[in-house]
Parts: sequence; structure tokens; C-alpha cells
Amino acid sequence: MIVTELRATPVAVADPPLRSAFGLHAPFALRTIVELETDEGVTGIGETYGGAAPLAAFAAARSLVIGRDPYDLTPLRLAIGSRVAEHAEGWAWEARRFGPAALFSAIEVAALDAIGQSTGRRVCDLLGGPVRERVDFAAYLFFKHGGNDAWGEVLSPDAIVAEARTMRDRYGFRSLKLKGGVLDPEVEVQTIFCLREAFGSAVPLRLDPNAAWSVATAHSVATRLDGVLEYLEDPVPGIDGMADVAAVAPMPLATNMCVTAFDHLPEAIAKRAVAIVLSDHHMWGGMRATVELGRICRSFGLGMSMHSNSHLGISLAAMTHVAAAVPEITFACDTHYPWQTEEVIVGGKLAIEGGAVALPAGPGLGVTLDRDAMGALHEQYLRAGFTVRDDAAEMRKIEPGWRPHVGDW
Amino acid sequence: MIVTELRATPVAVADPPLRSAFGLHAPFALRTIVELETDEGVTGIGETYGGAAPLAAFAAARSLVIGRDPYDLTPLRLAIGSRVAEHAEGWAWEARRFGPAALFSAIEVAALDAIGQSTGRRVCDLLGGPVRERVDFAAYLFFKHGGNDAWGEVLSPDAIVAEARTMRDRYGFRSLKLKGGVLDPEVEVQTIFCLREAFGSAVPLRLDPNAAWSVATAHSVATRLDGVLEYLEDPVPGIDGMADVAAVAPMPLATNMCVTAFDHLPEAIAKRAVAIVLSDHHMWGGMRATVELGRICRSFGLGMSMHSNSHLGISLAAMTHVAAAVPEITFACDTHYPWQTEEVIVGGKLAIEGGAVALPAGPGLGVTLDRDAMGALHEQYLRAGFTVRDDAAEMRKIEPGWRPHVGDW
Repeated sequence: MIVTELRATPVAVADPPLRSAFGLHAPFALRTIVELETDEGVTGIGETYGGAAPLAAFAAARSLVIGRDPYDLTPLRLAIGSRVAEHAEGWAWEARRFGPAALFSAIEVAALDAIGQSTGRRVCDLLGGPVRERVDFAAYLFFKHGGNDAWGEVLSPDAIVAEARTMRDRYGFRSLKLKGGVLDPEVEVQTIFCLREAFGSAVPLRLDPNAAWSVATAHSVATRLDGVLEYLEDPVPGIDGMADVAAVAPMPLATNMCVTAFDHLPEAIAKRAVAIVLSDHHMWGGMRATVELGRICRSFGLGMSMHSNSHLGISLAAMTHVAAAVPEITFACDTHYPWQTEEVIVGGKLAIEGGAVALPAGPGLGVTLDRDAMGALHEQYLRAGFTVRDDAAEMRKIEPGWRPHVGDW
Repeated sequence: MIVTELRATPVAVADPPLRSAFGLHAPFALRTIVELETDEGVTGIGETYGGAAPLAAFAAARSLVIGRDPYDLTPLRLAIGSRVAEHAEGWAWEARRFGPAALFSAIEVAALDAIGQSTGRRVCDLLGGPVRERVDFAAYLFFKHGGNDAWGEVLSPDAIVAEARTMRDRYGFRSLKLKGGVLDPEVEVQTIFCLREAFGSAVPLRLDPNAAWSVATAHSVATRLDGVLEYLEDPVPGIDGMADVAAVAPMPLATNMCVTAFDHLPEAIAKRAVAIVLSDHHMWGGMRATVELGRICRSFGLGMSMHSNSHLGISLAAMTHVAAAVPEITFACDTHYPWQTEEVIVGGKLAIEGGAVALPAGPGLGVTLDRDAMGALHEQYLRAGFTVRDDAAEMRKIEPGWRPHVGDW
């Protein structure tokens, strides 16, 4: 089997005005849809980060992909790595913002989809076989501004409880994650207590202020939320800061910020900075890399969960296949999926029922690209007026002079 | 695809009287040939450790394997693990001597061979694709007694040099590994100097006394062989002992004794006990596990080589597929293969040329079981008169009262 064409189509997906420590979501989330055509007639698909950087990287990597056997993935990973290293100058600036791990991952997903279609097997089978047929996800609770959506403004503990109730009613989520770092830490602690009161101790709660806090604040919050949080995610920046918090915090610390690549693991492990790694196949270098991360987490006694960015159904399918194949992912995974109403796959949005997504039944990823829908979202990308995500700039449109908290709240 | 039959056939393979710190090789090496029949008509094959323990384990695991999809490997690994744990009492004593990692690995190899045959792909493709089409192996030099073989007695530095010369002439090996722990450490140091003098500094040399030495001896040997050894393998027992030696030794320390499972890695890494891990898919839980070990070694700055036991061509093919798919295996791999003259695969022994084995061309492992040859080696097993390897007992037949050195030479 040989890859005959690599297409990367930028799309913009309507996104509500969600808040985080980084600022405000723009009206559109940017994604890239990847298509890998093969000489066997099957076309593998994938989805990754959006905007100018991935497009430049896909263009730069094109000659490494076309003509290659889709099974030939480890060699492709090494080739991308050395091409990026060798051509650090020639490799366009935009492309360098989309690193080799993310670039390889995007192609690997499409290649595994193609292999799955070609062999009639699900992607999870190609990763070693599923240990679960349904993957649990958590409700991803955001403070948000009022917008062109049905959720309205959510900027208080009570409003978060109402949002959580809707999320649970609609999707059956059995775990709740609050994106913090938005309001005063006191208010966010209060919000967690309100969620606990509303839903009881059987519903695991997580809080993720995206490293907005100081170590002192994190110590205080962690101590007060003893017995309330399942885990505390990225309270402060950096491995050393996380280690300082971990030494005091009664609950596990999780991260998708200070440990985002394999190279970060030795220091984090040596310093006991984190107890739970939030995997993300888009970021960590692919689906097989996530299986490998699972082995590392198991070997070193780390827990494993899954991080999310705003995404469409191709990514949700890929995340579901990965989480099904990685026994170490025992926590409900993050997903922004309920926040996106648009879709690029045939049949529209995948179902989340009982807080879980069932493994799609078909071969490969089990989802099919709706080319008309992709075309419409591509048109939306062209009209969106931006090609780089900048949540801080978006926030400053509303509050001029707004600056993110980074370890100082 | 469904597994319809699991067969484990014990065989005995003629083996020369090789010496090691553990004693003397018996006239036969015991191996087990695994066959996994499927409802698609293809039969996957594998090869693993021999004797009574594997047979008991295969019998105990039979119900977990029959009726399972060969792709369903991670669930099988977990099922074997929990069955062994749950039935620690009921699981026959013999079976418990062949641990879950080895048991799973033996079945995984046969399953991947079946998948490869079913999809027309090589096993290395199923592991992520080959980064090399030829895999380098090292000449495995042994002190030995005279026996029914053409090698004669090898119990002096000069005789080892002659053995190495024959190995190089016959197979083109470009790396030399001496199995030590047999003669006085002084004589083994002298042997290394003789090898260096005979073959020059372009031929990497390794010495492996299988943990026979004391830390003091290891310090002395390591210091004197500075600039001569590529790596020193298992000079002393245990992670703490290895760490003591590593703190002084100018060359990297390698191991296949103090780090033989993923659980051993955290302590070994924290104590900087070893610089190179000798992988072995038979021991570490399979071919995918070895890919995962590669990721760990890369992430933690460890080198990676490959260990061997006495084996036939099915294992050599599997080792070649694994080493081809794991970029981190940059050292020439160990193999006992030249010491075994008998074979169970069609066409007889695989070729070692230029010190390397080419990836077999066919689908799966690319080797085919010769059932007549297997039958003959099975008959030999039934006549061999033993079902558990015991090199020390074999040694005592010649030197009554012989005891192995364990960290005390």
C-alpha cells in the first residue's frame, strides 16, 4: 500500500466564548482535517490542531509522506524528526510552531485509519485490541460569557452547577471537570464545593486552573479541597512548582502542561511533581505513542487520563480508540465535544450516552468524512479572519489591558 | 479471525557444552514451539523457553486463548496477568515458573505471525515498520568444554581468539561478546586484551560475567578495561551492586539480570545502575512490549541492546523483526544461533552474513514450521531425560561440589 496524496484542509468550527486562564475562546476553533489517499483506493482521515502552523508543516512534510507505505510509521517519525532538526532554518517559521510530534501524530492517525479500512479492522485493534468497548468522558465545565449559544453566561458557582446539570442530563457524564484560573481562586474553590453539594461524593470532581496560581494559593486550595477533588490539574507552572505543591497536596496532581512530551518525564518523575499524566495523542506523538506512554505510567506508578482541545468527531473517534486500547487510562477523559455543534463526519455528531462514547463499529476509525460539511467549515475558516489561536487577544477585545495569570494568582 | 487451537510442542536441540557463571550447558537446549491455528486457515508460530514450566503454563492459559481474536492482545495480556494472580495457588507450580510476561509473549508472537499472514504484512510492519532491513548481531563467544562438536575445547584466551576468528570468518560478525564468569577474572581480562590485539579497536568488545564478580573485582576490571570494552554486562548482582560499579566504571554497564521487567526500571533509573538495557521479547512480555521499552530507553537516556538464550530460527526471525522495528536498539544483538546446528523451519538455518540477519521476506515472521523437523526434535525432547534446565547440576557431573560464583569472585 502506498500513499498517493496528502491533503490538509483547514476548517473553522463555531465555538462558544469559553473562558480559561489563557483568556477567551474566539468565535471559531481552528482544526485541520487530514486525508491520506492510497493506491488501494482507501483514504485515511485524521484531525489535528488548526491554523497556519499545521498547514505549513504538512506542506513541508509532504515529500516524506507521498510514496510511503502507510505501515511505515516509525521510519516516518524519525524522518520527520531529523528533517525538522536539519532544516530548522529552512523549515518555515510557521511550520516550526507545529512540532514533529504533532505532525507525525496527525499523519499516523490517518495512516492507521487507512490500514484499518484496508484490513477491515478497527484502529483500536491495530493498537493491541480494546480493553473496553465504551470510553468514559468527563463533563468539561467552563466559565463563559454569554454568546450565540444556548448556554448563556456562566460566571458564578450557581451557573456552573446549572451547566453541570445540563451536561449530565444531556450526556450522562459521571465525572465533572471545572476549567479554572478564570475567577478568583476563592470563587473557584466555592464552585467546587457547590458542585460537590449538588452532585454528591459519587461524582468525581477535578479543577484545572492552567497554572494560573502561585504555589501558596495552590497549597491553600489543595488543603481545603482534601477529600473533594479526584485530582488537581496544573495548579502552578513548571515541574519544580508542581513538585512544591505535590509535597503538600493531599490529592494527586495531574498535568497536561509541565509534562507534555516523553523528554519531560524523567525530571517530573525524579521530582515527584505529578501523579497523573494527561495523555493526548495529538500532542504526544500519536496513538501508538500513547500506548507507550501507558506502559511508562504503569511502570513508574503514574495514573493516566486524557487531555482535550476543542475538536470534531474525527478526533473524538481517535481519542476513543486510543483510550479503549490503553488500559492505564482509568480516569474519565476530557472532551470539549459538547461545546462544538458543527461536524465534519457523516451522520453528524457522535453520541455521548451515559457519559461514554462507544467505539465506532466500522473499520479504521469508524467515521467517514462528510466532504460537503468539511467544505462549509473550510469556507468558514477562510472567512474567520485569523489563522493563529490567541485567547488573550480575544479577551482584550472585551477587557483592554487584560493579561493572563501565570503562577501569580 | 478466531483462534481455534493452541499447540505447544516441547523440543530439545543439540547444544554444545558451553560454560557460563551458571555452570555448563546440557547436551540439549529445551525450547517450546507454539502454534496458533485460526479459523482463517492461517497458523501463527512462535518459539519460547522450553521444558515443563512453559508446557504447564500453556495448558493453564488454553481457555484464555482459544476462541479469542488474535488481534485481541492487550486484553489477553491483562487476562493472563489476573488469572496468574487469582489462581496463584491453583496455577500449577510448574506453570508459575513461566511467568505471565513470558507466557503472553509466546502467544503474542504467534498471534502477530498469524495477523501478518492474514494481512500479507511482515511482523515488523505490524510493530510500526522497520527502521532497518538487516539487523546486526554479535558473535557470542563462550568458553567451552570439548564435545561432540567441531569447536573443540575453548578454555584459554588463545582458544577464544581462535573461536572468534572462526565466528567472524563464517558469519562476518563485527562485534564480539565474551561470556565470562567462567575463568578467573584475571584470565578473562587477559582474554579481552587478546581479542583487542587480534581484531583491533574497530571491533567492539563486551564482557558478561553474569554477576559472578564482587564489586571490588568489577571496579578493578572496569578500570583496567577503560577504552577497551563497548560495555560491561552484569558484572555484579543486583541494582545496588550495579550502581556501585557504575559510579566508578568508565564504560557503560549493561544488564539482562538486574532489570528484566518494566517494574525494575524505576529503581534502576533512580540509582543510575545501568546505562544499557538488554531487551528480550521472550522475557519482557512481547514484541510490542519491546517497542514500548524502546520508548522508555529513549525517554530516560538509556541505550538498548538485545539478550539471547539458546534458540532456533523462529526466535531468530522474531528477534530480527523486533530489532528492525525498534530504533533504540543500536547495538549489535546477542544470539546463540551459531551454536545450534538443528532447526525447525523449512529451508534450514537462517543466514547470518556480514554479521547481520536480513528480515525474512514473507508475511508474518517470514519463516515456516518444518513439522517433520519439529517431530524429530520433539522425539529428542522425550529422550533427553530432563525437563528443567540446570546448568549447575550439569557442571557437577564433571566437578562434584561445583558451585556458581554469585557476586563473590
